[in-house]
Amino acid sequence: MKQSVKHRTVVKVSNDKASEVDDLLAVEEPLEIRLGHGPSGNRKQKTLAITMRTPGNDEELVLGFLYSENIINSKHDVLSVKPCVNKETRELEDNVIRVELTEGFEVDLERLNRNFYTTSSCGVCGKASIELIETICSNQIPNTFKVSKDVILELSKKLKSDQLVFSVTGGIHATAVFDETGKLELIQEDVGRHNAFDKAVGKKLLENAIPLNKNIGLVSGRTSFELLQKAVMAGLPILCAIGAPSSLAVELAEEFNITLIGFLKENRFNIYSNPERIIT
Amino acid sequence: MKQSVKHRTVVKVSNDKASEVDDLLAVEEPLEIRLGHGPSGNRKQKTLAITMRTPGNDEELVLGFLYSENIINSKHDVLSVKPCVNKETRELEDNVIRVELTEGFEVDLERLNRNFYTTSSCGVCGKASIELIETICSNQIPNTFKVSKDVILELSKKLKSDQLVFSVTGGIHATAVFDETGKLELIQEDVGRHNAFDKAVGKKLLENAIPLNKNIGLVSGRTSFELLQKAVMAGLPILCAIGAPSSLAVELAEEFNITLIGFLKENRFNIYSNPERIIT
Repeated sequence: MKQSVKHRTVVKVSNDKASEVDDLLAVEEPLEIRLGHGPSGNRKQKTLAITMRTPGNDEELVLGFLYSENIINSKHDVLSVKPCVNKETRELEDNVIRVELTEGFEVDLERLNRNFYTTSSCGVCGKASIELIETICSNQIPNTFKVSKDVILELSKKLKSDQLVFSVTGGIHATAVFDETGKLELIQEDVGRHNAFDKAVGKKLLENAIPLNKNIGLVSGRTSFELLQKAVMAGLPILCAIGAPSSLAVELAEEFNITLIGFLKENRFNIYSNPERIIT
Repeated sequence: MKQSVKHRTVVKVSNDKASEVDDLLAVEEPLEIRLGHGPSGNRKQKTLAITMRTPGNDEELVLGFLYSENIINSKHDVLSVKPCVNKETRELEDNVIRVELTEGFEVDLERLNRNFYTTSSCGVCGKASIELIETICSNQIPNTFKVSKDVILELSKKLKSDQLVFSVTGGIHATAVFDETGKLELIQEDVGRHNAFDKAVGKKLLENAIPLNKNIGLVSGRTSFELLQKAVMAGLPILCAIGAPSSLAVELAEEFNITLIGFLKENRFNIYSNPERIIT
C-alpha cells in the first residue's frame, strides 16, 4: 500500500541561519487506468488515462473519474476496480488500476479517443464548451435546496481541521462534502484538485448517493471550468471554494443552476451565481 | 483582442450584511492549437491540443507549449503562429491558433498520438516517468550558477508587485523569470499554472534566450511533476515556488540537477534539492 506522505531532509533558510530539518511531502505518483471487459483471464483491455495523483482511495478516484467523464452512470456498470498484478513477479502494481466493466455494459471506446471540443460548430469558445456539457448531462439541479449563510460561514473551519495531509505537508488539495446542516460527510485529498473532487464523487458513488442534490461541496483552491464540469455531473447545488473562480466557472455555474461561492473565509464569502439558495 | 479580466456583479456576504458589488474575474477560455505545414492556402492541419487558458500572450503560450512538449527545438522551427480566420465571416477566431511549421521541419504526429507512459517497461511509476524525460531532454544544467540567499529572499515581493491580473482578481497563477542579481526579466499570468510557465518559456524562445541557464524561475503556486518537467526542458537551474512541492517534483529536481525551493516568503524558504547553488 502506497503512502500519501513521504519524509525528506530539507534545508530551511531564514534571514540569519540555514539548517537541515526533516520534512514531509505530499506524494505524487502516476496512475494508469485500464478498462476491460470479460473474465479476469481475458486480458483485452485499453489504457484510458494516466493521471498524476496522491496514492490513497484509488478505487474512489477511478470511479469518480469514470462518472465525471460520463463513461459510467452508476457503480453497477462496474464489476471490479483493482490494482493489476505483475505477471512475472506476481506482485501488485499499485500504480495500474484495471476496471472490469459489467457484462453487457458497452463503452464506446472510439468516442473516447475523439476530441470532445473539435466537434463543436464555432471553433472553440466558452459557449461551445458549455453546450457540450449540456448534451451529456441529464442531472437536474433542484431549486428547493437552500441553506443559511451561517452554515456556509462554518465550513472553512471544518475543512481545515480535517485536512490531514495538508496539515503536515501544506501541499495538497482537498474536496469536502457537507449535508445541509453543515455536517461533514467526507473529505478527500490529492495533489491534483480535480482528483480530490473525483475521489469525493467516487466515494458517494460507492454509497449509491449520487446525484449530490442535497449536499454542499467545498474545494480548497480555486474553481475553473474543469471543477464546475465535475460539479454539474455530480448534480451538486452549492459549490464553495476557498479561492477565486474563473470567468468560465461562473458561466457554467449560472447555466447549470449551481450556486458558486468563492473566497470563503470564516467571516465572509462571495456568491457568484444563483444567490437565492443562500438565506442571508 | 480578448481581455484577461471580466466584470461581474457578485453578492458579498459577511457576518452582518449582504450587498451587491462589482468584481473582476480572471478570464478562462479554451484555446485550440492546430499544427500545419506548407503555404497558408494549404489547409492540411491537425488539432494538437485544446487547453483552457487566460487570453493574452497566446503566441508565447503556444511556442512554450510546443517547446516543453519537445515538438520544436527553437523558434526557427516555426514560420508563424496566428489566430485562424473564419472562412465565412472573415473574422479572427481568437481561440484557435494555427502554427505554421518551417518547410522541411518534420514532426512525427503519430508519435504525439501515442501515450508517452505506456511504453515504459515497468508499468507506470515515478521512476519510469523520470526516465522518459531523460530520453527526450538533452539540456545540461550547469553547476557553476550560484546566487546568494538574499537574492532569493527578495523575489516574492517582486512577484507580488507585478502580478497585475492577480492583484485585481486574486484568481490567477504567475511565472516570473529573474536574472542572477534578482532583476525581474518577465512575468506571465494564466489561470493554469502550466500555461503561465509555458508563456514564460515562449517569451524567452522568441528572444532566442533558451536554455535559461543563468536564470531563476518563480511560480506563484505549488510545484508538481508537470512544472518540473517544463523546468528541465527549459534548462532552468533554480526554480522557486510560493507553495509546496510534491514528492515527484523533488525527485525530478534532484535527478536533473535543479535547485528546487518551496514556501518562499519574505523572510524564509526551504531548499529541497541541490542546496549548493544557494550561498547562505
